[in-house]
Amino acid sequence: MKPRHESGHADAALIAIDWGSSNLRAALFDVRGNLLDRRESADGVFAVKSGDFASPLARICGTWLSGGTLPMLACGMIGSRQGIVEVPYVACPANLHDLTQALGHVRLQLPTADGAEGLVDMAIVPGLQTTSADGRGDVMRGEETQLLGAHTAPGQRFVMPGTHSKWVLRGPDGRVESFQTYMTGELFDLLRSQSSLSRVMTAPQWSPEAFRQGVEDAKENDLENLLFGVRTAGLMGRIAPEALTDYLSGLLIGSEIKAGLKRFNPTGLDEPITLLGTALLTERYAMAAAVFGQRVRALPGDAVFDGLLCIAQSAGLLASARVACSPGQGESR
Amino acid sequence: MKPRHESGHADAALIAIDWGSSNLRAALFDVRGNLLDRRESADGVFAVKSGDFASPLARICGTWLSGGTLPMLACGMIGSRQGIVEVPYVACPANLHDLTQALGHVRLQLPTADGAEGLVDMAIVPGLQTTSADGRGDVMRGEETQLLGAHTAPGQRFVMPGTHSKWVLRGPDGRVESFQTYMTGELFDLLRSQSSLSRVMTAPQWSPEAFRQGVEDAKENDLENLLFGVRTAGLMGRIAPEALTDYLSGLLIGSEIKAGLKRFNPTGLDEPITLLGTALLTERYAMAAAVFGQRVRALPGDAVFDGLLCIAQSAGLLASARVACSPGQGESR
Repeated sequence: MKPRHESGHADAALIAIDWGSSNLRAALFDVRGNLLDRRESADGVFAVKSGDFASPLARICGTWLSGGTLPMLACGMIGSRQGIVEVPYVACPANLHDLTQALGHVRLQLPTADGAEGLVDMAIVPGLQTTSADGRGDVMRGEETQLLGAHTAPGQRFVMPGTHSKWVLRGPDGRVESFQTYMTGELFDLLRSQSSLSRVMTAPQWSPEAFRQGVEDAKENDLENLLFGVRTAGLMGRIAPEALTDYLSGLLIGSEIKAGLKRFNPTGLDEPITLLGTALLTERYAMAAAVFGQRVRALPGDAVFDGLLCIAQSAGLLASARVACSPGQGESR
Repeated sequence: MKPRHESGHADAALIAIDWGSSNLRAALFDVRGNLLDRRESADGVFAVKSGDFASPLARICGTWLSGGTLPMLACGMIGSRQGIVEVPYVACPANLHDLTQALGHVRLQLPTADGAEGLVDMAIVPGLQTTSADGRGDVMRGEETQLLGAHTAPGQRFVMPGTHSKWVLRGPDGRVESFQTYMTGELFDLLRSQSSLSRVMTAPQWSPEAFRQGVEDAKENDLENLLFGVRTAGLMGRIAPEALTDYLSGLLIGSEIKAGLKRFNPTGLDEPITLLGTALLTERYAMAAAVFGQRVRALPGDAVFDGLLCIAQSAGLLASARVACSPGQGESR
């Protein structure tokens, strides 16, 4: 195999990969954690056919490997039962050290851009699991890495809106104490596109009033009593057809926030919630939280690659890094 | 047009039609309300193309009309905006008299079995609407007729499980006071077939234990906190993959019952709930209600044609009927 310095990027030291259900994103870093290149594709784990993970991986970072091999570190659904290898969940509470100790490993034969085949070693971040007092469990894969990337953000309660929105209680040493998943984004997509409610909706035009009305209705009533009301509100002209999508969004996000505040509001946690996610979603969550009188701070942007750098450094895959990692780094709990 | 007695059924006096979103069902009655013939098809309102309601109607009851014309009475989504003509909702409280007074009418040209075209008059039962104190509305189409058909059943609280489950508060004179729709059946179908939860499910085998566990979890926690747990319960082996569908069913039906009991449990209503619906569903609802300590009585079978006969008699479409109609019959509220 050719020496590393012949690759397209002479200083390349690490390929970091965020491989979720729907998307594959890869970034190339130097030994200090500086970004050299970045790519993404729609080859999410659920789109991969017959277990052939090597092909989409080669497509996205084959050229980075043309000069030799590089360590790879991946997180997300790639470590699930549907992924390349199942990496067992780590039980909460868990910190950076616990995640690093439990990395999964897989060796892959990748076709590279110059036609040769190269062996690469991929380390995979484990997900986290938590169990409530009554025996019900919850899991995450990928968000644990985003949380590490956001280790400098203050606060104990984190909300990560999305298809499967996560509410996380973080301990003072940066470890994840417990968390709860809400299917808010997935329910929204199903209901607005596949359900009988979609029959009364027209192409949405952003309506903050309809969104806020949804949140207020959710604050005062159970979601079960409200969902069919999207249809009725349309039929009866209470809400304009083009605003019904935002009304539904308000109902669902409002219901999540009501349930989340009930679950994660022990005494002494009357501080702002930290929102981690895209601006589009964190703005909606901030609006909804305001209806409940809950202050938030939004942390825009994408922390997952910072999290991968933290883990890479902790695992010795990077010599040093520009990223100062979490208080829990390197220490066992 | 030929005289009526040349039709296939010499005594035919009324065609009663239950035309919902998914199915079309028609029954032929004599002047006393005795059933002469009955047919059904999958030509529900949502399956009808380009507003051509005459063709599926002719297919299902053209032969009944071959000897002449007959009065037709229909209920269900056929009277909605997506139906043959929009019949305005009647506001609650409403009884048989109110529904009869507000019947919609449409005249149709139907191709008949003998190749001729015949004019038929179709009367259409209006739906009901109710408005809560905070201005949110709810609607039904078809269930008002089933309720009339069940007028001899005792009780004030009726639950009609289904795609859009209805909880109904019935006044002492048989009128509908108010009601609430739950999207339980539709959510169940979406989640078990289209969502990420379906990925952990295998072909279901009826598991009363998993169903009851779902109801118990719903009793103790908000649905928002529980839905993703279907996936986790599968991943962690808490519930067998073939029992997850019933666990989900228990979560959704349990959440409906919790919300419904909260909404329809004013003082003095500590009596059994009457369940109207298919045995498959009423058995599940009875099991779930038991977890909440709520007694039920189940009224199996299909009350909608009895309800159509009541309305036909009240509207003078039938001279007399074997069905004794509701206490509110013929009297204005």
